[in-house]
Amino acid sequence: MRRPIVTLTTDFGVKDHFVGVMKGVIASISPDATVVDISHEVRPYEITEGAFLVAQACRYFPPKTVHVAVVDPGVGSARRPIMIEAEKQFFVGPDNGVLAMVYATVSHRARELTSDKYFVHPVSHTFHGRDIFAPVAAHLSKGVRPSLLGPIIDNHLKPVFTEPQRTSKRTWQGTVLHVDRFGNLITNFHVDQFPKVATAPFDLAIGTLRLMRLAQAYADVDPGEPFVIVGSSGYLEVAANQGSAARLLGCATGAPCELTVS
Amino acid sequence: MRRPIVTLTTDFGVKDHFVGVMKGVIASISPDATVVDISHEVRPYEITEGAFLVAQACRYFPPKTVHVAVVDPGVGSARRPIMIEAEKQFFVGPDNGVLAMVYATVSHRARELTSDKYFVHPVSHTFHGRDIFAPVAAHLSKGVRPSLLGPIIDNHLKPVFTEPQRTSKRTWQGTVLHVDRFGNLITNFHVDQFPKVATAPFDLAIGTLRLMRLAQAYADVDPGEPFVIVGSSGYLEVAANQGSAARLLGCATGAPCELTVS
Amino acid sequence: MRRPIVTLTTDFGVKDHFVGVMKGVIASISPDATVVDISHEVRPYEITEGAFLVAQACRYFPPKTVHVAVVDPGVGSARRPIMIEAEKQFFVGPDNGVLAMVYATVSHRARELTSDKYFVHPVSHTFHGRDIFAPVAAHLSKGVRPSLLGPIIDNHLKPVFTEPQRTSKRTWQGTVLHVDRFGNLITNFHVDQFPKVATAPFDLAIGTLRLMRLAQAYADVDPGEPFVIVGSSGYLEVAANQGSAARLLGCATGAPCELTVS
Repeated sequence: MRRPIVTLTTDFGVKDHFVGVMKGVIASISPDATVVDISHEVRPYEITEGAFLVAQACRYFPPKTVHVAVVDPGVGSARRPIMIEAEKQFFVGPDNGVLAMVYATVSHRARELTSDKYFVHPVSHTFHGRDIFAPVAAHLSKGVRPSLLGPIIDNHLKPVFTEPQRTSKRTWQGTVLHVDRFGNLITNFHVDQFPKVATAPFDLAIGTLRLMRLAQAYADVDPGEPFVIVGSSGYLEVAANQGSAARLLGCATGAPCELTVS
Repeated sequence: MRRPIVTLTTDFGVKDHFVGVMKGVIASISPDATVVDISHEVRPYEITEGAFLVAQACRYFPPKTVHVAVVDPGVGSARRPIMIEAEKQFFVGPDNGVLAMVYATVSHRARELTSDKYFVHPVSHTFHGRDIFAPVAAHLSKGVRPSLLGPIIDNHLKPVFTEPQRTSKRTWQGTVLHVDRFGNLITNFHVDQFPKVATAPFDLAIGTLRLMRLAQAYADVDPGEPFVIVGSSGYLEVAANQGSAARLLGCATGAPCELTVS
Repeated sequence: MRRPIVTLTTDFGVKDHFVGVMKGVIASISPDATVVDISHEVRPYEITEGAFLVAQACRYFPPKTVHVAVVDPGVGSARRPIMIEAEKQFFVGPDNGVLAMVYATVSHRARELTSDKYFVHPVSHTFHGRDIFAPVAAHLSKGVRPSLLGPIIDNHLKPVFTEPQRTSKRTWQGTVLHVDRFGNLITNFHVDQFPKVATAPFDLAIGTLRLMRLAQAYADVDPGEPFVIVGSSGYLEVAANQGSAARLLGCATGAPCELTVS
């Protein structure tokens, strides 16, 4: 049997012992599991950022991978712990939207995690990553059947992620989903939804600029000049070769942008 | 046999090759070992911070785990390399206090690491993480008996970690052990030692504030308001829901605080 | 068979999903591989820094380790993807110099990666770490023969890394190769090339200072005082016990220095 994989996406950072503790819990339950960090540098409490990262990363993992996402400002309050089965993978986290970009557009099954025999006890009010999500993920990675973890639910959070809104015949209002390390601004305009940008003139208004150039590669453009590119996730990105588009344009996650296609 | 686990806690950061080199040394000696990072972001030379992290994390790992802690301002000087056997686990590091929170209150056995056949040669004066601690940990993880590594010692460092000091019938003087990523101030008042805070009025003076509220969960309190909570390690923490208590109170590791219980 | 090892050195940082995605690709192809991070904090586009780290780290890994180095400002442009066989290990990355410190001084074989059956499709123009380098490394780690990956080439980049230049009978002009987390300045004067510094007077001019003291260990010198030490890589380093030499001297990577030996 292939070794099970558990991925972790959190806002815990890497300076404290929190992530190490989760890995200790997983190793104690599922010693053969390989644990892969997606990111622990989600900005504290930024649920949407965590949701974006886990949704982008999961596609590159094999079936049966268990993804844990813990960005959890409501830890210890009434929000439920849940698991999702989708795309032949498992997802574990709080029911606060951090898993919602995974299941927004695909068929899936949700369960509330109620079987506390799979938790670490005593369950604290402050660290469900350690006490609920890591141990449940570890048990899943060992082959525990989802039906043993809790009942199917249908009322899990289904936030309206900002899909582009059509504002006129040729114009859509969008937003910046994520700013990556290089300062590239990842918009919510996906090339599958706007294939014409590859072949016809377009105009992307963002910050104080209107960008009309689609580059094939970062290196196609002079250093420092901002341009549009189809990023590795398929979303239109605003980039600046060897520079930070975010700094150049003064834009951050959530910034509005407007796409006009002809 | 279950795969062996080696954990690493250092102040080496992650921008250089130091941690990767330690993992290469471990993989060369003990290829089946899983290496788990606790933290490499201990502030440079802050022995007490490293001591806190390894002592918190180790409890969640299975028996026979080998924990390596390298915060080592005296590398290359007379301070001895040691190993500790405690709680069915192994701990390897310099004899400068970085392992002392592990063995402060439990029965344990200490050895000086003298058998240089388990070291990487030539042993440098500047990187014992690579040359002594990683290889010794790797050999331990493969089952080398501790008695082969060096003689039992009794004069290893036993620093007085700041236990709360009683200053009057109902008052204890304490200190901030650690500030976590979220800005939570982890004091050295442990709930096992002060169980009455859960049921009776108390007063925690810290910075310019006197806090009297014990919350069950971060989300129980309005954003930005500072409060006391029993943290995931069992210590009283000063927190601010979705904000940094450290910034709010202007406090850092080592800050004094005073607990009055009724 | 021993588990294969793949190491990663990139400028991708750890806040985004990029590194996790590469690990997902590797796990999907070569599930038994252990992936070791050397560093993802190479400064964006700093090819020489990545080259230094992978060249330093690789020596501590066992034969057959596959090292992936992706610092790739020219991704999507004409620069070729290559692999190197050297020192019984494999190296995969762009042909832009990021692997050149590995093969600068040892016999090696280079190949252009042309067999796109070992790539992830569609190959993007922006993320060859995911689409070319990670999957090729994974296949190599599983035992795919290099000859299947592409033809031998001879015109791969051979940058002149800054070897010290002799400027008079006793004087060499050098440079700072790397500044580590502690602020130590790692020069390109290697002790094997300048063994006399260990036994005879010398003078290292750097910044506004002339350093004449060679210490055996950091702790041999008073805190804050700058000095020269043979670092763990064998290069002369300028250090300041428990302080940052880089800050003290106002020097960064690339800073000139001059060594006079008697």
